[in-house]
Amino acid sequence: MVNTSSVNTLLSAIEDTGRDARRGGYSRPVYSAAELELREWFSAEAARRNLAVETDRNGILWAWWDLPGNDPTSPERRGALVTGSHLDSVPGGGAFDGPLGVASALAAVDLLQARENSGSLFRNRALAVAVFPEEEGSRFGVACLGSRLLAGTIDPRKALALRDADGNTFADVSRANGRDPDAMGRDDAVLGTIGDFVELHVEQGRGLNTEEFTDAAGHGPAVAVGGSVLGHGRWRFSISGQGNHAGTTLMADRADPMVAAAQLIVAVRQTAAAQSGARATVGRLEPVPGGTNVIASRVDLWLDVRHPDDAVTAALVEKIHGQAQKIAAFEGCSVQLTEESYSGTVHFDPALQRSLEQSVARTVPGAPVLATGAGHDAGVLAARVPTGMLFVRNPSGISHSPEEYVEDGDAQLGVEALADVLQDLL
Amino acid sequence: MVNTSSVNTLLSAIEDTGRDARRGGYSRPVYSAAELELREWFSAEAARRNLAVETDRNGILWAWWDLPGNDPTSPERRGALVTGSHLDSVPGGGAFDGPLGVASALAAVDLLQARENSGSLFRNRALAVAVFPEEEGSRFGVACLGSRLLAGTIDPRKALALRDADGNTFADVSRANGRDPDAMGRDDAVLGTIGDFVELHVEQGRGLNTEEFTDAAGHGPAVAVGGSVLGHGRWRFSISGQGNHAGTTLMADRADPMVAAAQLIVAVRQTAAAQSGARATVGRLEPVPGGTNVIASRVDLWLDVRHPDDAVTAALVEKIHGQAQKIAAFEGCSVQLTEESYSGTVHFDPALQRSLEQSVARTVPGAPVLATGAGHDAGVLAARVPTGMLFVRNPSGISHSPEEYVEDGDAQLGVEALADVLQDLL
Repeated sequence: MVNTSSVNTLLSAIEDTGRDARRGGYSRPVYSAAELELREWFSAEAARRNLAVETDRNGILWAWWDLPGNDPTSPERRGALVTGSHLDSVPGGGAFDGPLGVASALAAVDLLQARENSGSLFRNRALAVAVFPEEEGSRFGVACLGSRLLAGTIDPRKALALRDADGNTFADVSRANGRDPDAMGRDDAVLGTIGDFVELHVEQGRGLNTEEFTDAAGHGPAVAVGGSVLGHGRWRFSISGQGNHAGTTLMADRADPMVAAAQLIVAVRQTAAAQSGARATVGRLEPVPGGTNVIASRVDLWLDVRHPDDAVTAALVEKIHGQAQKIAAFEGCSVQLTEESYSGTVHFDPALQRSLEQSVARTVPGAPVLATGAGHDAGVLAARVPTGMLFVRNPSGISHSPEEYVEDGDAQLGVEALADVLQDLL
Repeated sequence: MVNTSSVNTLLSAIEDTGRDARRGGYSRPVYSAAELELREWFSAEAARRNLAVETDRNGILWAWWDLPGNDPTSPERRGALVTGSHLDSVPGGGAFDGPLGVASALAAVDLLQARENSGSLFRNRALAVAVFPEEEGSRFGVACLGSRLLAGTIDPRKALALRDADGNTFADVSRANGRDPDAMGRDDAVLGTIGDFVELHVEQGRGLNTEEFTDAAGHGPAVAVGGSVLGHGRWRFSISGQGNHAGTTLMADRADPMVAAAQLIVAVRQTAAAQSGARATVGRLEPVPGGTNVIASRVDLWLDVRHPDDAVTAALVEKIHGQAQKIAAFEGCSVQLTEESYSGTVHFDPALQRSLEQSVARTVPGAPVLATGAGHDAGVLAARVPTGMLFVRNPSGISHSPEEYVEDGDAQLGVEALADVLQDLL
């Protein structure tokens, strides 16, 4: 059976799953009802394409298009070509971050299966579509958790002890979803099946909309080839002060960690703005206890810092830590800094990148090479296997927000470019 | 039966109810399991004292010590003497804010019943102990909700539409707890039973620990008489910006409402510190969507402002609103201000206050008159009936925090002072 689903049709089928009425957009945290529904959808779509669906020890979904004639009970999958992305989202995220890569992979399989049936594609190796769990880190706080476990770049004991906002550990939630926590961690058998990994993803900034690339009508190319993933990390600052009554405590008698946190946020912005290429964000902040008529006793805030140069990222965090200590001391508070995750800048495999550039040029002439400020499973897997990425234009330049957007025509060009990339590598 | 429970014994019985392991202290929001358990405890203690326990249309608990000889099916309660306080708490609050007033009322009833039995007390009117729901406003956002409904100072339709953090309306939660939402609101029959209302409460600041009142050993008087309740209110600022990806959005391209909120918090502190007698607090702040790797699209923050002069409070809020608009505009954001509640400064009934001063002086010579920066049900009821307050010394000067504290001896002196006050008014 040959499918002819367009990527847009595929995405339409999941447009009601995990909508967030309060925030807008979608909230699809890993192993939530919404993300599990998306996994079911993926498995059904893979089955429609005669792909063999499996879940590995780390909760990664695999849909295998094995070579014809392989013994189905022991297929030769070593060094296969793998594409895919993720289905989880940030809270109130857009429709494309993750699902575009998964749906485009399925649509590219449609094109490749049609080409094979018509005799214009001859494969030398198997192809798999992979779906990685907890790419966003929005539930357990560590981004790319599935690929990190697979690649062995996070200690599984540390991963299993992570807790969500309700206090559930990743171990418990994994067990409840059919995983064996004791079996999680680096998986060389699975890594051995990945000869090359190519991830298609919505572009998350204005990269394809800058004057450098746009035509006279202001329209940028539909697709870019990934060059590198900026180093990035997450740090938690816990600022402790003196909880007290908002009405009875004189201003001069306060040690208010909210006031210290506010000054720190202003300092973070100033420090990042003064450093070319740096991005620093505080998007999450939790006062304890968080009552309107209560001076907080503690404020936890999370800092996200990214820069192409790992040394600069480290220096920025150190500088911000120093500012936090000064501010906290002045306010009669104390501060504690915890690094929750860090990934250095990743340069994609140069040979694979050149192959991608040549393949993409057939559909999208002049497709540029872009660095990305967002983390990706492809960046994590690059530590173990050759990886590359394609980015599809996002005219809003906005991501992790309901306003993230991809035009239908660009999505279709992305699928064609991905199919060409995969065909040339098969 | 004559009881001899000390206030400290009474409080010991509830010291495990509603403990908050995460924040420390107690979290006893209205109609939570913890608060309902405290109501059961109160009803049982009242029954032990032969008080008739009733719940009125607004969810206020009443324990009546009727005049002897009254027809129990139709007791003459008009113009009775009422004391009491509340049992709900802020998140992570202390053990005394609310329960001290309720337990002291029960202990004072013990003393008065013993005096009546020994022939040293002759009553001219009934006495009731009242327990008011949602004094803190920690669940539905409006403080003193029970007394406001009784007094008719809040539109019941507005009250019933209030929602808790889980989205439940006050109407639904009231119905689930046996109230009829359609029957809630100003209740003149109940108001008519209150001839005078006297509330005993833990002092929530350093009022009784200031040099003006302390002895050579640094020990202040155990009890103060209330003079006034500072005007106070709650305002919500919603700052809207552009939600976006924390890694891909250049610092210069951002409209980050968290950065605007941070500047506003700093401005709030500076503005309040520059105004003698003013207190302004941001203790609650919620970024939307609140992800670590997401520039927030909106930040909601709640401002609590208090000052003895209502005109100054209004001017402070207006000034802060202007600052918020300037800051938001500079950051490419917009701001919306909503007044959630406001209560003007309340001066307690002068004749009742003089009576309290004279009665208290027998147990605590030199007990001062204090204004309080905290809101109280007594302040709300003052709009309808003569009210007065007693404050018991809090050596920490800290409230709305686990560190709130009352010494056993001071608590006992508070009960004796309250009993004398009530005896002189009965």
